[in-house]
Amino acid sequence: MGMRIRLLLAYDGTRYCGWQRQPDQATVQETLEAAVAKLIGEEAPVIASGRTDSGVHARGQVCHFDAAQASVPPEKYSLALNRYLPRDIRILESGRADETFHARYSAVAREYRYYLLRGRIADPFAGRYVYSHSQIPPVTVLDRYAAMLVGTHDFTTFSAAGDPSESKTRRIYAASFFPEKGQVVFRIVGNAFLWRMVRSLVGTILELGQNGVSAEQLKELIAARDRSMAGPTAPPRGLFLHKVMYDAGTA
Amino acid sequence: MGMRIRLLLAYDGTRYCGWQRQPDQATVQETLEAAVAKLIGEEAPVIASGRTDSGVHARGQVCHFDAAQASVPPEKYSLALNRYLPRDIRILESGRADETFHARYSAVAREYRYYLLRGRIADPFAGRYVYSHSQIPPVTVLDRYAAMLVGTHDFTTFSAAGDPSESKTRRIYAASFFPEKGQVVFRIVGNAFLWRMVRSLVGTILELGQNGVSAEQLKELIAARDRSMAGPTAPPRGLFLHKVMYDAGTA
Repeated sequence: MGMRIRLLLAYDGTRYCGWQRQPDQATVQETLEAAVAKLIGEEAPVIASGRTDSGVHARGQVCHFDAAQASVPPEKYSLALNRYLPRDIRILESGRADETFHARYSAVAREYRYYLLRGRIADPFAGRYVYSHSQIPPVTVLDRYAAMLVGTHDFTTFSAAGDPSESKTRRIYAASFFPEKGQVVFRIVGNAFLWRMVRSLVGTILELGQNGVSAEQLKELIAARDRSMAGPTAPPRGLFLHKVMYDAGTA
Repeated sequence: MGMRIRLLLAYDGTRYCGWQRQPDQATVQETLEAAVAKLIGEEAPVIASGRTDSGVHARGQVCHFDAAQASVPPEKYSLALNRYLPRDIRILESGRADETFHARYSAVAREYRYYLLRGRIADPFAGRYVYSHSQIPPVTVLDRYAAMLVGTHDFTTFSAAGDPSESKTRRIYAASFFPEKGQVVFRIVGNAFLWRMVRSLVGTILELGQNGVSAEQLKELIAARDRSMAGPTAPPRGLFLHKVMYDAGTA
């Protein structure tokens, strides 16, 4: 009798070409599927809430897979899989999921966080997880741009070449900048995100802030639906998939 | 007119085979010497306070080199070299040193810190810099062992095969365990250390503590001067060269 297993996991994305399996590249999905195969002795595709790009980290990625045999108690998969995983991928929790649960389609919102550090010399230890820049505008200035993102918008301006999404419209529930432990954090919650959208938003907002452009200008950039009007894309190392939210009924 | 340049640097040792240049291996020394050569256009050996082992980190390594031409102002070497260095090696400060200054021979003491985390699931982000273990004895218990280390001792028991030092006697000025930010830290200050000595001490103390052995037993292990009596060697990822101390006159 098979069962669906749900995993909560964190990973340091530095040495991976993102979540999604690709030929001849180290990916989180491939590494996790190999660990699952070793543990349960069968190949099982592992489905995540969404792909993360190359070099992007996750603190609260969610995924699921189906185990044909119930050889491992559901809550023990975390410890058991961690033995087969490299230290930069850790299963934080595991449990049995309802058969109707789907890590991607059941997700109702995703939260990303981007970490910025003011300064010219990056800490070599924090440096894997933060984007250091000598010219980061004040948090209050940055936060004014963030407020413009809330709502339902066509984010074509902040999409990447090759993004397969038919619609570029996404609903943003919350967006803000705030200080935390000496860093500046960008927090954004939305129903879903386009490829590189968060990094494109961060890079563009930094540029607008450095140039003293008004927050309303960001609204106009969105309305233009023109990729050539976006600013630079911030590097992946500062970005974390922080949390994935599900309806209470689909856990 | 040449001048001696002193550097304070930090590095994430994870992907390096230690400080010391070795054929066909990525080392911190080789990486730094390549950056110096690119910057000043001449080959200059870079001498550190001491070698760190493969995978060991440094927060306050000190080194020096001689620049035949004074093309860069001494205090600007930090920013200039960082442009040629990977992000996991950062020069924190640079300055001119007296010609009698020698990063290794002028050093009077070194401080190392080893970071431990209680728990079965290591954080994949902190995991590069800490040793997670589910059975870490209470700090007060560990600290009783640390107190036994202070003084001048022959540390043969905690030496590694192949250590080239003629004398295995080292003077320990301070040693303690204390809690910090949810972790347990081992701090040790000594005139110098044998290869892998700090990691061998940490591994052995953890084992003694887990087995409820008295602190005096550690004294007996030292007195035995027998490598086979040491416990396991703790992994390099938890170890940091924290600080190197010099006489006020040799800066």
